[in-house]
Amino acid sequence: MWILRLNMTDRTYRLEEVPAAYKNLGGRGLTSTMVYEEVSPLAHPLGPNNKLVFAPGMITGTPASTSARVSVGGKSPLTGGIKEANAGSSWAQFLATMQIKAMVVEGQPKEKGKYWMVHLAWDADKGKPKVDFFPADEYVGKDLFETFPKIYDRFSGRIAIAGCGLAGEYGYANSGIVFNDLAKRPTRYAGRGGLGSVLASKKLKFIVLENKGAPGVSIVDRALFDQGKKKMDEALRSHDVTKPKGALNSYGTAVLINIMNEAGGLPTRNFSSGRFEGAAKTAGEAIFEGNKERLGKELYNHACSPGCIIQCSNTWHKPDGKEHASCVEYESDWALGANCGIDNLDDIAEMVHLCNAYGLDTIEAGTTLGVAMEAGVVPFGDGKKAIGLVQEMGKGTPLGRILGAGTEFTGKAYGLTRIPTVKRQSMPAYEPRAVKGIGITYATTTMGADHTAGYTIAPEILSVGGKADPLSPEGKAALSRAFQATTAFIDSSGHCLFIAFAILDIATGYEGMVEECNGVLGTSWKTDDVVKIGAEILRKERAFNEAAGISKAEDRMPEFMKYEPLPPHNQVFDVPDSALDSVYGEL
Amino acid sequence: MWILRLNMTDRTYRLEEVPAAYKNLGGRGLTSTMVYEEVSPLAHPLGPNNKLVFAPGMITGTPASTSARVSVGGKSPLTGGIKEANAGSSWAQFLATMQIKAMVVEGQPKEKGKYWMVHLAWDADKGKPKVDFFPADEYVGKDLFETFPKIYDRFSGRIAIAGCGLAGEYGYANSGIVFNDLAKRPTRYAGRGGLGSVLASKKLKFIVLENKGAPGVSIVDRALFDQGKKKMDEALRSHDVTKPKGALNSYGTAVLINIMNEAGGLPTRNFSSGRFEGAAKTAGEAIFEGNKERLGKELYNHACSPGCIIQCSNTWHKPDGKEHASCVEYESDWALGANCGIDNLDDIAEMVHLCNAYGLDTIEAGTTLGVAMEAGVVPFGDGKKAIGLVQEMGKGTPLGRILGAGTEFTGKAYGLTRIPTVKRQSMPAYEPRAVKGIGITYATTTMGADHTAGYTIAPEILSVGGKADPLSPEGKAALSRAFQATTAFIDSSGHCLFIAFAILDIATGYEGMVEECNGVLGTSWKTDDVVKIGAEILRKERAFNEAAGISKAEDRMPEFMKYEPLPPHNQVFDVPDSALDSVYGEL
Repeated sequence: MWILRLNMTDRTYRLEEVPAAYKNLGGRGLTSTMVYEEVSPLAHPLGPNNKLVFAPGMITGTPASTSARVSVGGKSPLTGGIKEANAGSSWAQFLATMQIKAMVVEGQPKEKGKYWMVHLAWDADKGKPKVDFFPADEYVGKDLFETFPKIYDRFSGRIAIAGCGLAGEYGYANSGIVFNDLAKRPTRYAGRGGLGSVLASKKLKFIVLENKGAPGVSIVDRALFDQGKKKMDEALRSHDVTKPKGALNSYGTAVLINIMNEAGGLPTRNFSSGRFEGAAKTAGEAIFEGNKERLGKELYNHACSPGCIIQCSNTWHKPDGKEHASCVEYESDWALGANCGIDNLDDIAEMVHLCNAYGLDTIEAGTTLGVAMEAGVVPFGDGKKAIGLVQEMGKGTPLGRILGAGTEFTGKAYGLTRIPTVKRQSMPAYEPRAVKGIGITYATTTMGADHTAGYTIAPEILSVGGKADPLSPEGKAALSRAFQATTAFIDSSGHCLFIAFAILDIATGYEGMVEECNGVLGTSWKTDDVVKIGAEILRKERAFNEAAGISKAEDRMPEFMKYEPLPPHNQVFDVPDSALDSVYGEL
Repeated sequence: MWILRLNMTDRTYRLEEVPAAYKNLGGRGLTSTMVYEEVSPLAHPLGPNNKLVFAPGMITGTPASTSARVSVGGKSPLTGGIKEANAGSSWAQFLATMQIKAMVVEGQPKEKGKYWMVHLAWDADKGKPKVDFFPADEYVGKDLFETFPKIYDRFSGRIAIAGCGLAGEYGYANSGIVFNDLAKRPTRYAGRGGLGSVLASKKLKFIVLENKGAPGVSIVDRALFDQGKKKMDEALRSHDVTKPKGALNSYGTAVLINIMNEAGGLPTRNFSSGRFEGAAKTAGEAIFEGNKERLGKELYNHACSPGCIIQCSNTWHKPDGKEHASCVEYESDWALGANCGIDNLDDIAEMVHLCNAYGLDTIEAGTTLGVAMEAGVVPFGDGKKAIGLVQEMGKGTPLGRILGAGTEFTGKAYGLTRIPTVKRQSMPAYEPRAVKGIGITYATTTMGADHTAGYTIAPEILSVGGKADPLSPEGKAALSRAFQATTAFIDSSGHCLFIAFAILDIATGYEGMVEECNGVLGTSWKTDDVVKIGAEILRKERAFNEAAGISKAEDRMPEFMKYEPLPPHNQVFDVPDSALDSVYGEL
């Protein structure tokens, strides 16, 4: 196993042995550790001293189901703090099977303008990975749906691609790292926090992997691993949310639209209501029925990456049956739908497609449009004009640059007070005034507002992993803390976070996860260690943020949520500051 | 003496007795204390819970020379921290002579769009001030050079005006509070930190004062006051910098252009050099000579407010002799000149005029243009295109909104790394890599980068108040600390900061300042108390900032200044973090 360093100042690379301290780390645990140890907290995110770390999970590249995640870490141009964003893609598996524990992109060319790409393959003669740098200016300034096929054509072998789009080239704080999906689309994103522009700032446009002949991931205790995998598979195959033709496989994550709307927690028209009258028209069920009508058959969802049991990625099709966009996730659907007062799936799908084409995070894009609509730039509910705004981002016009810089930036550009962000990152699709636990996660996570950092929605709304009253703040700090720590472990394992639905309800699944990791690494962790290992990761992230100037005064909701009651429950965010402070205070 | 509160939620007002704890406060000491005590550090700067406090200095409104300053305090939309900005204007004296210790603008109308103005006059019958609210929509969306004359026409008596311009209406983080000068121009600014948009957020467009019949400022010990004033006047009249036909009276503050250029500390083309080849063409001497040529006679400068001995405000005249702009200060001249690579005084004057017309801070405007030029929006040195950018701000176009949001914002919109800001406020006209002490002030002051917060330029460049090597960091933390504390006192006294040139060199002048204050207030402060009183103010400001989330990690220079050596001295900013931390650590 190696640490691979790409030095973009002089375009050289170096393979290093994995330090002993990193042997049992993977995914988020490794990216956050390396960022914490190697990046100056006061480095400019787009300057030569930031680094971008790509790390597959502990078990990524093995046959473990739903485990093709890669974490990307660095200092975020959006939040100014540490960032880990992850995606599911064969790219993650390719990296892992070449025995690369982490790839670090460092430095920055002095020369301006010129872009490069990297081709990383297995050198069978030397028995190690090999890197070539190529000029990449021909791919710059273009739509990713145009450039991805060109790269697939360029390399004869089976490849996987990571890179950045126009959003990164423009230096937008809203810019993700794109990865290929199984149909070679540029649609899998480590989306949040602006890491696409960090990659672009290093003038690295694409990282192409070819793992032919690679040795694969070593598994220390195969029997234990197999036992863990069996438990995990059984859990995933039996839970109603994750099983084949279950909720996620049938309706995708957008199955949540109706559920959250019913709960009064679907943020609508820039977080001014928790209920959207057009919700049902955009829900996962509507996607399923709409596709059935347009395709003349039922369409179940597909996997984003090899070996996934859950298979939650959908496509949306045009009236003539042609594919329009993949994937219309709950978050994207909501951000560009309800949050903008838009109830037309074709308009929403077009915006999802454009975000994928430009390299934009759909959540930040949609919340930014919501704020722009609040400012009167275009009216709420006008899907065609909303599409026009996304196109502005693709063009890099002054208006596009305002929007591309994100939700808080846009709100400031227009002098607004209702700006739904924490630590400069916009809130996702759960209204914290209607679901208090998720609000605690938004407020306190090291990532800026982020539902995936501690998804208390599971017990608060879905009765998964217990049951909790969403409107009550009682006990929610401890709940969020436990979820945040567990999540940090899952994000390190290489599993998709969606295994949580199954393993929170099925104890053997949870055991299975730990056994898979023990099998691969040769560790002997108990299930109790998960939270401890996760907490250790969170403490490093927190320390980085503090040194970067993000103090606990930023572990707070935006002020408007404390004095504007949210319909239909007419609640404000009433979690006391002391409870917020206890999340990390008692970690 | 009263505290006058204007409640903009329901447009009522209240006169309160001055609490005992505020009796000896004035200016910055009072605004910062009230903001610290009354404003939630996490309030949105443009929301209903921010407040704007106007406080004349301790001796403002008395016959003390050069003492017509008013401090304006609130939470800054630019820095997110506490802000005090002050201006010299008859408005300050009018407020003081109506025995108003502080005027607090609070609340916010629920109704959107509609603006108001306030007329505050002395009610001789009741022996107290009286407030009337009037609709002000007719003044909205207009140039201040258009609206100021209308307001002077509207009120028959002798009035003074404060207000905000288009920049405030747009909610720009670059937006000052404007005050009238002696020729009824809208040209005196409490410019920095975006307080104009705080006023506009409260839908208060103008505050008109009429002090006819007002009792004036009470002076407890007239003899002591007179003695102090005599000492102060003598110092001001004898020091080379402040005396009539001295440096400031002849050449204005722009006398510093050649001096700073010579020292290699005149930030040029967005802080990429410390020397500008076109400096002399824009210097105070060039203004003096240019005016002489165009007017056919020598023109000495004028006072911004009644009773000033220094009289440093200039005018610049068009080729036909018509007035073009007032006042072309050093900071404005530099920001819109050398920092943009522009050496044409007519272009610079046009931009100064436009900033005054729109309500923009010239420093932040010029540094923003520098960053925009670095991003390639328009070329360095192109005065006509630079004027066009300022006009964009006046129009509120998307590009104008980027620029109006300030230097750091613009730098982020274009993904730059060379952004000369601290705590989101742009650096003024002294390069910290060439003058280390002022860099310490920029880094550590509670205000964001601000030369007026601790003007170590005096000893470092001007040999005033001692002599220190500008390139050496040695002893500069203590120097900056002493200057910051002394300044906080001067900003509270009501004196213009420019008295410092005289009183730092002439001990009796310093005594005079303290005696004037003792005379007015009945206190018995010694000269030693100045720093203690100042430090107390700084501690409150610092505490506010910490609670607002501005930690000591933000007491730092932008990263590029640590790795980009600045010509001609080729120095980086090499003050150790420990020295920066000691400024407030040992306060």
